[in-house]
Amino acid sequence: MSLVFTPIQGLPLVQPGDPLPELIVHALAAQGLSLTDGDILVVCQKVVSKSEGRVVELRRVDPTPASRNLALALGGKDPRLVELVLRETNRIVRAQRGVLIVETGPGWICANAGVDESNSPSPDTAVLLPLDPDLTAQRISTTVRQKTGAEVAVIISDTWGRPWRNGLVDFALGVAGMEPLLDCRGKADLNNRELHHTVFAQADALAAAAGLLMQKDAGVAVVHVRGYRWQSSPHVSGRALIRPATEDLFR
Amino acid sequence: MSLVFTPIQGLPLVQPGDPLPELIVHALAAQGLSLTDGDILVVCQKVVSKSEGRVVELRRVDPTPASRNLALALGGKDPRLVELVLRETNRIVRAQRGVLIVETGPGWICANAGVDESNSPSPDTAVLLPLDPDLTAQRISTTVRQKTGAEVAVIISDTWGRPWRNGLVDFALGVAGMEPLLDCRGKADLNNRELHHTVFAQADALAAAAGLLMQKDAGVAVVHVRGYRWQSSPHVSGRALIRPATEDLFR
Repeated sequence: MSLVFTPIQGLPLVQPGDPLPELIVHALAAQGLSLTDGDILVVCQKVVSKSEGRVVELRRVDPTPASRNLALALGGKDPRLVELVLRETNRIVRAQRGVLIVETGPGWICANAGVDESNSPSPDTAVLLPLDPDLTAQRISTTVRQKTGAEVAVIISDTWGRPWRNGLVDFALGVAGMEPLLDCRGKADLNNRELHHTVFAQADALAAAAGLLMQKDAGVAVVHVRGYRWQSSPHVSGRALIRPATEDLFR
Repeated sequence: MSLVFTPIQGLPLVQPGDPLPELIVHALAAQGLSLTDGDILVVCQKVVSKSEGRVVELRRVDPTPASRNLALALGGKDPRLVELVLRETNRIVRAQRGVLIVETGPGWICANAGVDESNSPSPDTAVLLPLDPDLTAQRISTTVRQKTGAEVAVIISDTWGRPWRNGLVDFALGVAGMEPLLDCRGKADLNNRELHHTVFAQADALAAAAGLLMQKDAGVAVVHVRGYRWQSSPHVSGRALIRPATEDLFR
């Protein structure tokens, strides 16, 4: 009846090329956690990116004049970081007041294209967002099924800011096994009135919840979730959480 | 070590004037849940608004010509609802494509000023957002301490849409007992590098997590949280989660 989030502690510091799905299964077993059908694993984007080699040494980045100018206009950002961000950018959404918000990847909108220096392998490296977190989530889910027999959903998450609100929360980038959105339209509320507008972003809510256990100094990159009921769905994508530009009033 | 969210089932259908803090304490006891220091209660805005009489009969609402025109421009919304929304509105943020997003209350930005027909007491009523959810959270926290001796934090939540993302998640409106934002600036990451940009919106993440158990047809208005470490803080407000207009790039 309760919904239980458990931090997985024993994951080693992940290096490029490491087999992340196997490391996760191993860490779960080492913690004595026996997976069952319906469990969910939320995996922090940072370990996904590291294992997939999405790590760049800043000294190898040669900023273009445009990146240098933008870095300066933004109040003195590192031009090499701005260069990396622009390489990941489909479209600049805002570049103001020291803040660079862009559309990246399949349409994610976030600060600095998700390029991050914190918890990167060495002081002069930056970590980029994974190229296909849906695929990574699917691989983790498949490895879990092969090694343990359990049908689990997997969410790859990252920590982002939001318009209108202070502070960061975690969002779902990649999803496997479960629908990212729970569509309640057509169902009835407690008074048997039809719910018209209720599409619940369950994968984002699960990511936000797991984020409570993933503070950056905690060393927790995987959170196990038990007790949330979801329907298995084979062909899903975290892209379902991205509002198409044509429907978005805030770009 | 785990973080446990438990839905509280036995709350009656709340009516205007009902003593919500006492009803919550009673429902917790009826479920055999014994509160301890450090627990958190997340309470759905809807029961707060109902108990505080923030319910309006639509047949008593006389829309102004401006509300009628806006309702029409938005593709045929109920002009009485638009009238209610505009009465709650500090500033219209967007009125396009059938969507009316406004700044309301102390600066919350959400669709329709949070005015909602679902789970309202009768088909022709609408529920408005509470006037001072911080105060309500404080009252619930005080009643819990008086009746059980436990020091708990309380969050009043509501379900809103977001820019850039599909689907709704839950946000924190009112907060008592805990800081809504966890400020990690100055702390070190796993590689002893200083975290520069990490202010974590923990009250929003807790609200989002509780929302997983508060689907509109579930009849769950209160969720109990155990296992999240927070520091007690007497003078807090959910307003800390609202980005000031002068710092917001998306209004």
